Parts: sequence; structure tokens; C-alpha cells
Amino acid sequence: MTVLKNDCFLRALQRLPVDRTPVWMMRQAGRYLPEYRRVREQAGSFMTLCTTPELACEVTLQPLERYRLDAAILFSDILTIPDAMGLGLEFVEGEGPQFQKPVRTAEDVRQLPIPDPEKALRYVPDAVRLIRRELDGRVPLIGFSGSPWTLATYMVEGRSSREFRKIKGLMYEQPELLHILLAKLTESVSLYLNAQITAGVDAIMVFDTWGGVLSPVQYRQFSLNYARLALSSITRERAGKKIPAILFTKGGGQWLEAMAASGYDALGLDWTTDIGDARARVGDLVALQGNLDPQALYAPIPTLRAEVRQILERYGEGSGHIFNLGHGVWPDVNPEHVGAMIKAVHECSPALHRGGAI
Amino acid sequence: MTVLKNDCFLRALQRLPVDRTPVWMMRQAGRYLPEYRRVREQAGSFMTLCTTPELACEVTLQPLERYRLDAAILFSDILTIPDAMGLGLEFVEGEGPQFQKPVRTAEDVRQLPIPDPEKALRYVPDAVRLIRRELDGRVPLIGFSGSPWTLATYMVEGRSSREFRKIKGLMYEQPELLHILLAKLTESVSLYLNAQITAGVDAIMVFDTWGGVLSPVQYRQFSLNYARLALSSITRERAGKKIPAILFTKGGGQWLEAMAASGYDALGLDWTTDIGDARARVGDLVALQGNLDPQALYAPIPTLRAEVRQILERYGEGSGHIFNLGHGVWPDVNPEHVGAMIKAVHECSPALHRGGAI
Repeated sequence: MTVLKNDCFLRALQRLPVDRTPVWMMRQAGRYLPEYRRVREQAGSFMTLCTTPELACEVTLQPLERYRLDAAILFSDILTIPDAMGLGLEFVEGEGPQFQKPVRTAEDVRQLPIPDPEKALRYVPDAVRLIRRELDGRVPLIGFSGSPWTLATYMVEGRSSREFRKIKGLMYEQPELLHILLAKLTESVSLYLNAQITAGVDAIMVFDTWGGVLSPVQYRQFSLNYARLALSSITRERAGKKIPAILFTKGGGQWLEAMAASGYDALGLDWTTDIGDARARVGDLVALQGNLDPQALYAPIPTLRAEVRQILERYGEGSGHIFNLGHGVWPDVNPEHVGAMIKAVHECSPALHRGGAI
Repeated sequence: MTVLKNDCFLRALQRLPVDRTPVWMMRQAGRYLPEYRRVREQAGSFMTLCTTPELACEVTLQPLERYRLDAAILFSDILTIPDAMGLGLEFVEGEGPQFQKPVRTAEDVRQLPIPDPEKALRYVPDAVRLIRRELDGRVPLIGFSGSPWTLATYMVEGRSSREFRKIKGLMYEQPELLHILLAKLTESVSLYLNAQITAGVDAIMVFDTWGGVLSPVQYRQFSLNYARLALSSITRERAGKKIPAILFTKGGGQWLEAMAASGYDALGLDWTTDIGDARARVGDLVALQGNLDPQALYAPIPTLRAEVRQILERYGEGSGHIFNLGHGVWPDVNPEHVGAMIKAVHECSPALHRGGAI
């Protein structure tokens, strides 16, 4: 077993003392990096990157060469599960992901297989094993999945949506059918994350990108409930080490208390929530990850530094904060600004862990 | 002065006792009504409807013929102010509103005139005067404006946006220029709403459709601050009667305490907030308007009724609730379902105003 050289991220997730606030970035392996764009171009398609462990490994490691990051995140996509269920995932240039066979009827739901992650999704644990070897203990590796609700939105809508008409129609007209779909997805997500854990990830994150379009009651019933159930079937330990789990609901700032009681070790916050208020609300139940507005990376560097500092100060003293963006980095951000953000976290945060203000 | 036959809405806005919960609906005059579509087709363009007082009056009154609504809302658009500032508003089919001359530079901001509502926007107070006469005191008439921040987003982006790159760029790079723009818009909004009040509206509503894309600090600085300033220059009385004011920030559920302290009489809620929790948070400071998910109107009628009832019950006993959707009604909703929603409010709510449960 490789010994981790930097466990700052894992310690902060468990609210254990750290020297400084750890930092990583959603979509840190991605289009804003020229070295990523070169590999992506050679690969020909986004899915080739995801399904070729050597390429997924290469792009996962790229940001670590440039920046002093405290975690790597598996390069993949949340739609691998629906793809493995046979829905026919396609990425249409300028339009985002689409499914050839969206899920609409009871028969569609009944026919969905629960993918064996070591078969239809084998490329994912294979990539994890390879990345883990190449990382050689530099930083922890994060595995991830979409939440059952978020996967269901794409599967029912058939594509990215702003309005969620089809899935909300299903929710209001045939809630029991939606529950069957979500139960299938929950089992699939658990198996998928367990396979990533067995293959070597050190922490997991569940992306509930679209939980925020629901009412509070619907959120608990259709999103949080299944994110919680998925977690309950996941191995939380490997070789005596805890595998912490992070739940991120974009637009979920009003529901942090319920999320904090769901068994996850940490919550991701988007930028619409004050992280100091969030900490007061969740108390000692969970760590918090976030929450810089991704668009602050376009700001002049002094402004960007002030924004970073404000978030660190609002979280305040002590462990339990993992610095991140409030959503994924945009593709046309200047990589130097990403570096400036990370540097600001390194420079400003140590004082918060010595019992002093910044 | 015409005496109002139904002041349930105005009383609830001031948290005075009522017999039942008043109800109206955002975009209640609109495309889901076949009688609206006929007028819209004859008019040729959406803006012709807005700028022709007789047509604006006709469509404003249409939903009152069908439904037992407790308020009428002026038929208009939030982009009338930027249009009167000379930005060249166009509605492109399937793409929404666009401006020929978006605001990008300091010179663009400097050159913006503050429209005299009785000149460049004369069609609006003219429509109010006509509607007021035709209403003949049946129900109160609501006037409205976009919030300074929301108007600025359209003016800077030049069109509807999901990402708000340009306005956020301005905010991070030249905040002082954005403040100048917002100050001009604040003055324009105050003049515009005052003209509507003078012409005869009984209440006003400020639509802050895009405040929810900001961080908490930015929301207070760039959105709420100017919505509050606009209100402070508005006549809040006419002929000894109070003109109540409603503030609606979509996605503003996390900031209700600050909004409640801003001087408005009521807050609009989208469907992501539990209206019972919201009431507990704002206490006696404001009334609350909302907050059914507009997509619940696609649900089978028994489900729709249950959703209406749940919101009424969550708000609970006593005055201070105006039933509404959490956002505008969708164009392809069945008008019968709108009727069922209104009927459910009429049937379920009286018990809450007799000191009993539903």
C-alpha cells in the first residue's frame, strides 16, 4: 500500500487538524488547460478520453504538474452509468450530451440493466488503478458519480435541460415509476462507487447537479433520499482507512441541515451560500467544500485574491474546509488565474490553522 | 375615486385579516390562454401588445373573465425601460429578447438617458389609466418593473443568458462602472413605478429575476441595495391609501432576512423555499407571495390540489400569504388546470382564516 505524502484533503474532510486549507477544483482536468486540449484533440472524442484508461490517467494528472493541488479527481463523466445502461450517449458539439434512447415509459425503466462496473464500466476502475499507480501517493484520488436524481434527469429528458419538463411530468404524474427508476440508479451508483473504491480512490463525491430545481419536499423525496441510500450501500473503509464521501447539490443552499444529516462527511457548496453561515448551520456534522464563484477566475488577480481570502475568512479558524469553486471551472479561464487562486489559498490559509486570523 | 370591490390582495399584503387567501398568477395574462393568442396574433408582435394601451388593457383583463382572481397585473415587459433608453429591443422567435445596442463601455453607460415615463414610456401609464377605468374597482391592479440588477443583466449581456459572463466580468473588473449603471437604472425604475402609481396601480412588484446568480455579498451590493434604493424614492401612498410593494428575487431563498429588512411589504418566493420556514424566518416584517412550482400545473388535478393545499398548510393560519406560482406560468399549460389551482385556493384557504386548520 502506497503511503500518502499529502493527506491534508482527507484530514480536512474528517475535520482533523491541518496546517493549511486544502484546495482542489471541480473540472481541474479540463479544457482550460492547453495540455488537455492537445490530448483531447488527438483522442478525437470526449468519450474516448473517458474510456481509454491511459488517456484518462494522463489528463487526470496534468493539473498536478502545474499546480500545488491537494487532490486529484478521476477524469470521467457523470453519464457513464446511463451510457452503460444502453441509452446511447452522444456528445453533440455545442449542444452537450444527448441520449439516443431516453427513458420515458414503464417498459423503458423495466428494461434498464444495472451495469456491472467491472464489465460495462470496466474502463473506470481500470483508469482508477492506473492513476493510483501513477500518482504514487502524491495526493489522494477522488472518485465520483452523478446522484441518482441527476442521472435520472438526463435519462428522462434525453439531454441537458433548463426546464425539466419531462422528468417533472413523470414526478407529478407517475411518481411510483420515477421511484423505481431512482431505486435502480441508486443500486447502480453504489456498485459503481464501490468498484472505484476497490480500485483505489481515497474519497468519493456525489454530484447532484440538478437537485436545486426541486421543491424542498421533492428534494428530500426524490434526490436526497436516494443519495443517502446510495451511500448506505457503499464501503466506507479500505485497509482500515476511512473513505470520506462528499455530497454536492448545486442550488441546495437552503437544505444544508437535511443534507448534513444524510451520512455524508462533507457538503459541497455553490457560490450562492455564505460559507460562514453554512458552517454555523451544519455545526460539527460535516466538513464544507467550496465555494468561489467560477467566474471570479476572470477577475483581475488582486480581486481574485480578495475573493479567495473572503471565503477563507468567512469559514474561519480550524479544520473542516476544503477550498474549491462553487461549480466547475469554465473552459476559457486563464490557467494563470487558476494558479493565482491556488497560491492565495496556500498563502492566506495557514494562519487560520494556527489559531489566528488571516 | 372608484371603490375597490375586492381588497383581499391588498389587505393580505399588509397582513390585515382576510376571509381567504388571495390568489393571482405571474404571467396570468399570457400565451396559455387562447383568447390571448388571438389578440397576440392580430397585433403581429409582442411589443405592439405592450405599446398599444387598448391591447394591453384587453389582455390584462382576459384572465379575470375566466377565473376568480384577486388581482390584475399590468400587461407589459420588464425590458420597456432599456428599450426606452434606446438599446433597440427585439424579440427573436425562439431566442427571446435581444438588444441591438448592448451596454459595454463607460461611454455606453454615460450616454444612457433616464427615460421620462410620461414621454418615452407613455404607453405604460396610458395602459394603466385605461385598465384602471375598465377594471372599475373589481380587483386591484399591480404595476411592475424589473429590478435595477436584472435590467442591467439584459442590457450588458444583450440577451437572455445562462452564464452572465459579461455582467459578471463587469462586476469583477469595473465594479464602479456597474454601480453607475445601476444608479441610473434605479432612478429610471423609481420614476417608472411612480408614473404607474400616479396613473392608478394599487400595488407594485419588482422582479429580480437574476439576483439568484450572485454570491450573498454581491447580492446585497449589486441587487438588493438598488432594489431598496429604488423603493425609497417611490410614493408609497395615493389619496391616503398605501401602495404596497413586493420584491421577488428568483433563487433568493437564502437571503430572505436581508430582503425582509429592505422596506418592501412582501416577498415573492420561488418553489425551492418552504413557505412555512420562510414565514418563521421573516416573522412579522413582510407578507409572503408564492410559491407553487409552475410545473405542478401539468400534474393531474388531484395532485395539483394536494400541492396547493400543502403550500397553504405550510404557510398556516392567519393573513400575510398571497397564493401564486413560484415563477411565471408556462405557455402550454392547460387553462383548466389554472382554474383548478385557483378553485383549490378558494376552497381550502378559508379555514385558515377562521382560526382553524384546513
